[in-house]
Amino acid sequence: MTEPLKIGLAGLGTVGRGVARIIENNGSEIARKIGRPIEIAAVTARDRNKDRGYDFSPFPWFETPAELAEKADYDVFVELVGGEEGAALEATRIALKRGKHVVTANKAMLALHGQELALLAEQNKAGLLFEAAVAGGIPIVKSLKESLSGNRIERIYGILNGTCNYMLTRMQNEGKDFAEILKAAQEEGYAEADPSFDIGGIDAAHKLALLTTLGFGTVTSFDDVYVEGIENITPEDIRASDELGYRIKLLGVAVKTEDGIEQRVHPALVPKDSAIGEVSGVTNCVCVDGDFIGSVMLIGPGAGEGATASSVVGDIIDTTRQCGDAVFTLPASELAPYNRAPLRAHEGGYYVRLQLHDRPGTFAAIATRMAEYGISLESIVQRHSDHIAGDSSKGSEGDPAQVVIITYQTTEQAVSEALREIEKDGHIAGQPNMIRIERL
Amino acid sequence: MTEPLKIGLAGLGTVGRGVARIIENNGSEIARKIGRPIEIAAVTARDRNKDRGYDFSPFPWFETPAELAEKADYDVFVELVGGEEGAALEATRIALKRGKHVVTANKAMLALHGQELALLAEQNKAGLLFEAAVAGGIPIVKSLKESLSGNRIERIYGILNGTCNYMLTRMQNEGKDFAEILKAAQEEGYAEADPSFDIGGIDAAHKLALLTTLGFGTVTSFDDVYVEGIENITPEDIRASDELGYRIKLLGVAVKTEDGIEQRVHPALVPKDSAIGEVSGVTNCVCVDGDFIGSVMLIGPGAGEGATASSVVGDIIDTTRQCGDAVFTLPASELAPYNRAPLRAHEGGYYVRLQLHDRPGTFAAIATRMAEYGISLESIVQRHSDHIAGDSSKGSEGDPAQVVIITYQTTEQAVSEALREIEKDGHIAGQPNMIRIERL
Repeated sequence: MTEPLKIGLAGLGTVGRGVARIIENNGSEIARKIGRPIEIAAVTARDRNKDRGYDFSPFPWFETPAELAEKADYDVFVELVGGEEGAALEATRIALKRGKHVVTANKAMLALHGQELALLAEQNKAGLLFEAAVAGGIPIVKSLKESLSGNRIERIYGILNGTCNYMLTRMQNEGKDFAEILKAAQEEGYAEADPSFDIGGIDAAHKLALLTTLGFGTVTSFDDVYVEGIENITPEDIRASDELGYRIKLLGVAVKTEDGIEQRVHPALVPKDSAIGEVSGVTNCVCVDGDFIGSVMLIGPGAGEGATASSVVGDIIDTTRQCGDAVFTLPASELAPYNRAPLRAHEGGYYVRLQLHDRPGTFAAIATRMAEYGISLESIVQRHSDHIAGDSSKGSEGDPAQVVIITYQTTEQAVSEALREIEKDGHIAGQPNMIRIERL
Repeated sequence: MTEPLKIGLAGLGTVGRGVARIIENNGSEIARKIGRPIEIAAVTARDRNKDRGYDFSPFPWFETPAELAEKADYDVFVELVGGEEGAALEATRIALKRGKHVVTANKAMLALHGQELALLAEQNKAGLLFEAAVAGGIPIVKSLKESLSGNRIERIYGILNGTCNYMLTRMQNEGKDFAEILKAAQEEGYAEADPSFDIGGIDAAHKLALLTTLGFGTVTSFDDVYVEGIENITPEDIRASDELGYRIKLLGVAVKTEDGIEQRVHPALVPKDSAIGEVSGVTNCVCVDGDFIGSVMLIGPGAGEGATASSVVGDIIDTTRQCGDAVFTLPASELAPYNRAPLRAHEGGYYVRLQLHDRPGTFAAIATRMAEYGISLESIVQRHSDHIAGDSSKGSEGDPAQVVIITYQTTEQAVSEALREIEKDGHIAGQPNMIRIERL
């Protein structure tokens, strides 16, 4: 058996627990992808006896992150301690000096010590990966650093803080004021007890500073981010903006100008019907403009146990990757035979447009046939042919009528059979058109 | 000087030209990222003398892709010949057998010969990269293969064909029928002379088959994709769906079921106000659901010279990458000093909410001051306090009134100075609230 990929896990909070759960649940799949087992080889946290909702007791315990970084036997040091300095920074330096790869979710540490740590990593030929530090589960670091690296980046912007977006969305939906929504968000766990880093824009500014360095190749400069939070947004602002066609979002924006780089985090009005205007709740998004790509936008969960841990584990796997490895995630010889699911079993709603002989009782006949096949109808709408053809002459009775039916969850087979019966009954004047409704 | 990264470029159509332009324009930046120069070392195409809008004559010419693959001196073979078999397949096999990395945009070839080519690549420790084959500039292949590889993928779906989405969007906006819009799209270059691969769903099915293999680890099985095109969608369907709150999109969907994998490409109704419902024109999108990540969605250009070439060049760069390389795209020692742009020079529109003494002439006074500072107003709306507070009692004359102003493009400085003057004039009853409008 090949030597396993050994993880030293420092910090056993929500994200640490998520990492342990991914390795437990998906470890055998991951092992097939990287060609060796993956295991947690050492852990550390502040309090050994705290109930964490996950049993970390089987793993070798170290007293401090620094001790783990220094003494444990691991391949990848996973830093989930947090904080811009202190234990996280000390342990990261130790691991890098040992030439060990470091995977971190610590935006504050990198925003303030980015270049120093990057130099240390590169001198020691160690990886320093931080997908989880920016926008949680969204693969923006890798996309910017790797996929888009043929471009000159012109602008990066996005919704980088889930707490703020959640609060603004609720203010929008409920018309309540900032303080009331903040209290509710704290009770639900969407805002911290001390929410100042989130609502004051600091957290978004940390992330923006990292995106700026990746996109523009400049030294990470958190102090140069202009920061305004959402504390002064009132329900009146949200309502007035809405009436004028806008939503208020806390944006992070980094843009290349003739005078240098402009980095700013502040509330901004964005058009309601834009993709970014539709990003609501705790969801984050990042948009990148480049000279050849044009624009790409990535939308996804900006925080949370599973999403952030997904990015951490993606980075852990990445430390093992080389060009020439598996083309399609798994080695080609291990790809499973394709097993085709029978499509007729597909369940979903359907849009059905029928051309019918406009006679008394037709509607009832259709509804009855649909019911016979167990199909519930969300709506059934008759559309007169004048309306359909778009001219103004009225259709007369006896002309074919169009009926549009939206069904609830059913099977394609049921709809097809019901339509066949309706056709046999002599109601249908033309070819029915059936389109699936996709539940997203 | 380090040895350059040498590209063998087979196929000099739109995407090939884009690759040449990126290397010409951004080659020195790319060289800093990969630590060596990048150059086109050999080219081939069907007709040497065709005008391609780019001068390929300086590059060593080979008569066929196979000859280039076999005889040229290159590090990465870039296959932009196209076609599921023939010259593309032959040359790709030769390059891989030589142990050379291959970067391709050829979805048809991979959808039909994916496993064979992957085996060949892995046996020869050569990379076979194909970001450009799926959804043009969107970094979905890398995201699925690398960033999300800690997850069990549950579903992948998206808008995978720009021609179809462009046509459906125009049918939606203009109410014209399929044939008419197809003709217009062909004249504008958004649809091929023979559009059957696009509008029949085949192109989307090729891409879906590759996403399925990446996400579910099954042998690429294009023949198992259920395919329906958009040919039967009528303006009536689009109008009726719109009235019911839906948009019609050509979707590709791959989903894991108890019975196996379901792969299907067909028109589907999606909610109007969903993120995917907002994806219009030639834009593509891909959404991935995984057990830990939840859902992520990537939106961007699905085709076009620059966007597709951006993915090709991203892959070329990727062939050189190893964990332990530059942390922030560029080596940390080469990061430029941060040069902060003065924010006051920031140009944009502004939302300004003012609390004013409700006296005759106040509106005019404000508009005049704004004009003095060169600020054009998009709208100026008075909002009575009863409306604002949300209660039903009427505000009386003399009460403070709220005025919301939306400006056109101006500077923060101009707005601040105009507000200062308005305050001096004695019109302002409370603290003004100013929010930037972001042009996206």
